[in-house]
Amino acid sequence: MDNILNEALVEGIKVSNGGSVATYIPELAKGDPKDVGFAMMDLEGNLFTRGEYLKRFTLQSITKVISLLLALEDNGMEEVFRYVHMEPTGDPFNSIMSFEVKNPEKPFNPMINAGAMVVTSLIKGEGKKEKISRILEFTSLLTGNEKTVYDEKVYLSEKETGDRNRSLAYFMKSTGIMKGNPEETLDLYFMQCSILGNCLDIATIGAVLAGNGIHPVTGERVLKKENARIVKTIMTTCGMYDASGEFAVSCGIPAKSGVGGGILGAVPGRYGIGTFGPTLDRKGNSTAGIRIMEYLSKKLDLSIF
Amino acid sequence: MDNILNEALVEGIKVSNGGSVATYIPELAKGDPKDVGFAMMDLEGNLFTRGEYLKRFTLQSITKVISLLLALEDNGMEEVFRYVHMEPTGDPFNSIMSFEVKNPEKPFNPMINAGAMVVTSLIKGEGKKEKISRILEFTSLLTGNEKTVYDEKVYLSEKETGDRNRSLAYFMKSTGIMKGNPEETLDLYFMQCSILGNCLDIATIGAVLAGNGIHPVTGERVLKKENARIVKTIMTTCGMYDASGEFAVSCGIPAKSGVGGGILGAVPGRYGIGTFGPTLDRKGNSTAGIRIMEYLSKKLDLSIF
Amino acid sequence: MDNILNEALVEGIKVSNGGSVATYIPELAKGDPKDVGFAMMDLEGNLFTRGEYLKRFTLQSITKVISLLLALEDNGMEEVFRYVHMEPTGDPFNSIMSFEVKNPEKPFNPMINAGAMVVTSLIKGEGKKEKISRILEFTSLLTGNEKTVYDEKVYLSEKETGDRNRSLAYFMKSTGIMKGNPEETLDLYFMQCSILGNCLDIATIGAVLAGNGIHPVTGERVLKKENARIVKTIMTTCGMYDASGEFAVSCGIPAKSGVGGGILGAVPGRYGIGTFGPTLDRKGNSTAGIRIMEYLSKKLDLSIF
Amino acid sequence: MDNILNEALVEGIKVSNGGSVATYIPELAKGDPKDVGFAMMDLEGNLFTRGEYLKRFTLQSITKVISLLLALEDNGMEEVFRYVHMEPTGDPFNSIMSFEVKNPEKPFNPMINAGAMVVTSLIKGEGKKEKISRILEFTSLLTGNEKTVYDEKVYLSEKETGDRNRSLAYFMKSTGIMKGNPEETLDLYFMQCSILGNCLDIATIGAVLAGNGIHPVTGERVLKKENARIVKTIMTTCGMYDASGEFAVSCGIPAKSGVGGGILGAVPGRYGIGTFGPTLDRKGNSTAGIRIMEYLSKKLDLSIF
Repeated sequence: MDNILNEALVEGIKVSNGGSVATYIPELAKGDPKDVGFAMMDLEGNLFTRGEYLKRFTLQSITKVISLLLALEDNGMEEVFRYVHMEPTGDPFNSIMSFEVKNPEKPFNPMINAGAMVVTSLIKGEGKKEKISRILEFTSLLTGNEKTVYDEKVYLSEKETGDRNRSLAYFMKSTGIMKGNPEETLDLYFMQCSILGNCLDIATIGAVLAGNGIHPVTGERVLKKENARIVKTIMTTCGMYDASGEFAVSCGIPAKSGVGGGILGAVPGRYGIGTFGPTLDRKGNSTAGIRIMEYLSKKLDLSIF
Repeated sequence: MDNILNEALVEGIKVSNGGSVATYIPELAKGDPKDVGFAMMDLEGNLFTRGEYLKRFTLQSITKVISLLLALEDNGMEEVFRYVHMEPTGDPFNSIMSFEVKNPEKPFNPMINAGAMVVTSLIKGEGKKEKISRILEFTSLLTGNEKTVYDEKVYLSEKETGDRNRSLAYFMKSTGIMKGNPEETLDLYFMQCSILGNCLDIATIGAVLAGNGIHPVTGERVLKKENARIVKTIMTTCGMYDASGEFAVSCGIPAKSGVGGGILGAVPGRYGIGTFGPTLDRKGNSTAGIRIMEYLSKKLDLSIF
Repeated sequence: MDNILNEALVEGIKVSNGGSVATYIPELAKGDPKDVGFAMMDLEGNLFTRGEYLKRFTLQSITKVISLLLALEDNGMEEVFRYVHMEPTGDPFNSIMSFEVKNPEKPFNPMINAGAMVVTSLIKGEGKKEKISRILEFTSLLTGNEKTVYDEKVYLSEKETGDRNRSLAYFMKSTGIMKGNPEETLDLYFMQCSILGNCLDIATIGAVLAGNGIHPVTGERVLKKENARIVKTIMTTCGMYDASGEFAVSCGIPAKSGVGGGILGAVPGRYGIGTFGPTLDRKGNSTAGIRIMEYLSKKLDLSIF
Repeated sequence: MDNILNEALVEGIKVSNGGSVATYIPELAKGDPKDVGFAMMDLEGNLFTRGEYLKRFTLQSITKVISLLLALEDNGMEEVFRYVHMEPTGDPFNSIMSFEVKNPEKPFNPMINAGAMVVTSLIKGEGKKEKISRILEFTSLLTGNEKTVYDEKVYLSEKETGDRNRSLAYFMKSTGIMKGNPEETLDLYFMQCSILGNCLDIATIGAVLAGNGIHPVTGERVLKKENARIVKTIMTTCGMYDASGEFAVSCGIPAKSGVGGGILGAVPGRYGIGTFGPTLDRKGNSTAGIRIMEYLSKKLDLSIF
């Protein structure tokens, strides 16, 4: 096992120069390609780590998993999927044409931006402040890390440059899918994307999902079994942007990536995995993270297929 | 001539029940199908009128002609068409997919909403207040009607329900086509759409265009010849929403319609025409207006083809 | 177990009137909604059956699994995926716009018609005759049923009415993705779609896949492990038309359906499943089959997630 | 006048190196950029020519005007426009997505390939042989040039490489818009595109249109007035591919271009114009031809707007 973990890190570092750091927000552009690490947690809470696994980064799209889980716990499956489909799509994450061309009534799935914003709008709470508090507390519940915060600078950057998401939100407002005030939902969504975490945090979330909702450290149930299963499924079909199909073939692990450089993986019945590496490939996935996941999947036979 | 004009009105009234009044804004829904009228002005300022030609309505998309003329006078042809194409499109007026699918860099033409908003953003002036003043004054210059105002209630309704336009504006902001503050441009655009006028007003604008920029009443040049010609051309290829091609065949008159029920026509070298009838066909054009235009075109041989 | 199987059949029959039989080909329209059945085979070749599990039907899109497996065995993974992606898409199975709009260079995946035709064109053999022989023999190898044939009447019907597929094939010829003579590939594809089989046959194919390429009856390796895994993955993300995401959530079994009324399922490490029921839902999947799969998945805990 | 004509030729030659010759068919690639010429005919049949106005080339898309006129004469306006719209579109001439996305029931207009093929399928006659004879004879009637033929080599090249058109035809067959045998219509369409002509021929056709159907040389009526008007209108809105809007603004002459290097213009009440220059701009229009048209339009005040 030790050799496999060592080798996985070496593989990850090797490819980490193969991509480029996200630059649409100045804060993201500061990532150092050499900062590669990962954590793996089994269902008893045993931890296997290598490299910069405590380095914090913004979770970005990985929070789509968190908000979907919270919305499901808040509203139940039936209610949530009245507002968003669960079909994968070959379109990029910020596509707007799908609405007009193919599917005006609701977004394709909760892992693309439009779907994630609708999901966020379903989270319960009075006003933005209570809602973001609930998201942060729920993240803490999953990670076991009590002090979940979002990065104020990144949040403001996202807000400043979020015109494409604003366009998506107003489109959905105009068709009636998105309820409430779009600006409030956008703000909440930008805060959510800016939540900080490290490989340990996301490996723990992955282990909760892998264990069908039982927290690996406390042994307590923190999610309904059903909701853990639903989210793992959607991660498999839609979690890696428009490279989800390819990742399912090469790796076979339910996973969700974010442009902050993280990938959250959940191997049903076995492990949660969190990887970090700031350089991204053309589709927006961490090059080091994908390499590490593929290596671990192969060596430890983690594919669900 | 008298008989032709009488008959044109009868024809218009006859079909005015064939459509339905625009209802997306409560103010528009109040239109009475029996309120049909038109005015025709030759290049010497002689006037031919029938029916409710003094009834005021909001000009809506007809103002796209006004703002395009002002933007051209302000900036010149080359500058304006750096931000918007001049190609007709088979897409509906509020389509967003064209951007993503076909033409990300700039809207197809100044007669669809996206293009019109970009054009409005090019009008010169310090802030919203000065800009709307300039638009109102320029409208007065064209119509000869000194007191051009916009309808406050309609403006607020447009603003309230304008999420699709907001989505388009933020999309264009995200791709860099639309400069400045999208909310300011949207506000200006909603005000502009709510400008009030009657058949006489728009017939006069039509006569200015027909006369290559010479005002038919004062004999003064109020537009560059080149700009009058450009706008008549774009009216022909794009002025009647996605029925522009059909209208060109059936009528052959450069024209622009609005969901307020008006149609502005400009017969090069001969007449300006303004029609009114509040019921609209499926594409958003006044049923009475189209019928009157077709009748006049046939009887007076007005087609440019 | 007996009760579960009995109940699954009852459930399937109950919903079999909930859809309509495919009618685009006269032969398919003859299906009787009461003809519902299924077969389940474990990795030792033990068989569990109920209802009309020996009733023969045309496999239709289920043969996309067979041709993909044969193309992979013939050419290897790398070569096959030079001509087709492995990304799920929210588009219908016969969509053509994806090419022009999103992905001109190759079809999204081997489970939509365009992708399946490209895959079929990659199967080795001299001319149509040898190729179809190889497909039929390969099907026999997988099912253990020596006399695999295709239904001549259905084949001719498919050929007669296959203009949309013809359009797709010539489109791909024009962009250079499809090599060789499109008419030959189309013909081969129509023959392949018309291959006859029953629940037992497709359950056996499912068991081969579930067992990573080892035949459950003979114990011999008939597929490379890698190829079995790839195909199960693609079945999960793309196998149930544009309801694949929903089926993954509700059922969690790698599966492929056909408009002939069959569904092939492969539960990794456990079972192959074949269901039949001729009525289809709006997306083209057998209503009885989906219900049976869902029931078995729930009661026998078959979800991979 | 002489000076204007001389200068127009010089202008045309100057820009003729600014584009590249069509190369999708070997025969077209042989064009010499220096071969520039034009002919202009007034309504009395007086002729003004410069340069290589007798050089023959394949008319290509210019024949869309001829086949539309013949189909209109054969079937009347109402019947023809049951199968094709008359709306301009921003899509390229060979777009297929419009069908699926926007307008499944009929092609946008008779000047894009799909629409032109439908129009050709409406021409009367028993079988391909009689139909092509009728098209050739009708062309002779319009040009006054008795021996109209098509270029066999170009026809065979078009047929050989016509897979995109074949895809469009089978798509329309699958939706029911295109009647009859698609291969026959395709063949007829490829023959039609290969018809040979020179500037004099197309200037004469232009003069027939300009004169509302009266032949300028014989003084006989060869087209219904109505049909001449319809076709001039559609040329204006759709005749120059997706540069039609721009050409209408810069030139204001109803025109149709072909990738063989020709442009046919019809100035209502004044002139027919035919230009030739084999190099094409990015949209597929002859660079020399556009320049000559613009120059003549400006100097002789030919714009209809």
